[in-house]
Amino acid sequence: MKHSAFSSVVLRALINGRNDCNRSGTAVATATVMPFMAAEMSRHCAGAGGLKRGFPCWKRMMASESLRSPVEANSTEKKKEEKKSEGNSLVASSYWGISRQKVTREDGTEWPWNCFMPWETYHSNLSIDLTKHHVPKNFLDKVAYRTVKLIRIPTDVFFKRQYGCRAMMLETVAAVPGMVGGVLLHLRSLRRFQHSGGWIKALLEEAENERMHLMTMVELVKPKWYERILVLVVQGVFFNAFFGLYLLSPKLAHRVVGYLEEEAIHSYTEFLRDLESGAIENVPAPAIAIDYWRLPKDAKLKDVITVIRADEAHHRDVNHFASDIHFQGKELRDAPAPIGYH
Amino acid sequence: MKHSAFSSVVLRALINGRNDCNRSGTAVATATVMPFMAAEMSRHCAGAGGLKRGFPCWKRMMASESLRSPVEANSTEKKKEEKKSEGNSLVASSYWGISRQKVTREDGTEWPWNCFMPWETYHSNLSIDLTKHHVPKNFLDKVAYRTVKLIRIPTDVFFKRQYGCRAMMLETVAAVPGMVGGVLLHLRSLRRFQHSGGWIKALLEEAENERMHLMTMVELVKPKWYERILVLVVQGVFFNAFFGLYLLSPKLAHRVVGYLEEEAIHSYTEFLRDLESGAIENVPAPAIAIDYWRLPKDAKLKDVITVIRADEAHHRDVNHFASDIHFQGKELRDAPAPIGYH
Repeated sequence: MKHSAFSSVVLRALINGRNDCNRSGTAVATATVMPFMAAEMSRHCAGAGGLKRGFPCWKRMMASESLRSPVEANSTEKKKEEKKSEGNSLVASSYWGISRQKVTREDGTEWPWNCFMPWETYHSNLSIDLTKHHVPKNFLDKVAYRTVKLIRIPTDVFFKRQYGCRAMMLETVAAVPGMVGGVLLHLRSLRRFQHSGGWIKALLEEAENERMHLMTMVELVKPKWYERILVLVVQGVFFNAFFGLYLLSPKLAHRVVGYLEEEAIHSYTEFLRDLESGAIENVPAPAIAIDYWRLPKDAKLKDVITVIRADEAHHRDVNHFASDIHFQGKELRDAPAPIGYH
Repeated sequence: MKHSAFSSVVLRALINGRNDCNRSGTAVATATVMPFMAAEMSRHCAGAGGLKRGFPCWKRMMASESLRSPVEANSTEKKKEEKKSEGNSLVASSYWGISRQKVTREDGTEWPWNCFMPWETYHSNLSIDLTKHHVPKNFLDKVAYRTVKLIRIPTDVFFKRQYGCRAMMLETVAAVPGMVGGVLLHLRSLRRFQHSGGWIKALLEEAENERMHLMTMVELVKPKWYERILVLVVQGVFFNAFFGLYLLSPKLAHRVVGYLEEEAIHSYTEFLRDLESGAIENVPAPAIAIDYWRLPKDAKLKDVITVIRADEAHHRDVNHFASDIHFQGKELRDAPAPIGYH
């Protein structure tokens, strides 16, 4: 798996740009990023003001408020240009002058994504054990397991072997639990004046990761009008139901999600089977997937589904772990959250 | 402002630990981090499997799932030890074996925080303009401005010049809007199958930053029992009210938050005035603040309030900007979000 190339950081322009912008709000600087130029980074991040800022210096300097906003990536060039001019006129007319800096690759092309930056991309852990299963141990475990198995029946009837459509639709649901859990833990941390053990971030990271699965699948499978309506209805019901469930029994909520992820792994395995047999065409991977998971430029849909499945396995582990913590009579904050990878 | 020192990454142990753990789940490796050892990082991050993974390699390797969980930082040694043994027994008994790796500083002491890692710390932008004010331009602006000014009256009566208590209590409120906005944008992105422009992350970052302000203030000011009840009630009311407001009118919601932040800047300025005059004792900064904002080891409360105020100024800008975008008849996703700094 080759690492996506970055271009060199033109830090002098960045530093000058940032200084100018603090006064004018309109200076433009271009930062380009290159394959981990450690010595250069060290020199620049140590040099400015004599401060040793370390590697986060790169990230923070990249996040300078001085620059013209980048363009939202869309499937057509025309949309790209429209967005660029909209973005520029918005920023130029805003008194508040907050702009995203431009990040470019080595070949000069812009980093096209706004929802994730180069430093948020990663390699999936493909050695993760896909066969792990939490054997239901008690009443709540059995309720969770049987509920998930029951929900699977109409889902299988509706989607049959249309795994692309299934993935696209179900990721709209999968991205909800992490966000609900994150919000409720955040509110609890505030009103109890307590630390979170990192679990707010862990759950929000899961939600964002599932949303990226959706953003990837939607490049390949476009929802029909009745599927959009179905998603609206399901979100309205599921968000509120899961919110209530998490308030009543976070241990059951996490166990349900753990089992849902086990089902997701099974579905993606079937998806891969159909890709290998040719029943589903193994199309080139969308650009967003290549950048987000650092896949090779010639990656195919099969590579994308493989990394998505690995992500689901990780979510399975995190949620079963979270449920285990509750079952031991403890709060999540008592066991530091597994954050930093998806 | 000196950068907090990190210890050197003992990557060999990390790599070996991670490999072992994928099989046993019990291997322990210690990662220590040092001031940006660029050459070493480059060698290790380039060497493993021949892949050039770039600087995020450091972050991801630090996030290996192999290690014993660190201890939640608390104010007493005893609590620290209790948590350590609880954390260890939890992890040892969990089939799912997900542990946070141990990160240590150069002096061998553990990185004590679970809710933020070394790569998430930053220097506040102290040159930010504190005097910016959005002059109300239209009916909704005036509603937002007058509402905030009205809310200030009972707040001033209740807290008087007890700025420590005021900050501690009001940060429980300030951390709500970003989370509400983030959740609603996340749900919208899912049901519309649309990109977010990075705004979900921007708003969640704001919420987390405000929560860190709270975690800092609570080290200095402990809430009384009636203040805890007040926080419960206010959270219940404010969360639901802001949720409804954001659904009805995100432009008004963001404008309200922008004006709230302007008031926060004013309050923190008064706080600093009392610190300078001696009316409030300028105590040493809590450890969490020194690490989170990379303050010098001998930092005082005055330094902490200064960086918090700078953060509030940034939130003011982000929210007024978000409101401006809406007032121009656009969605937030049309202008890439200012993410990557607080």
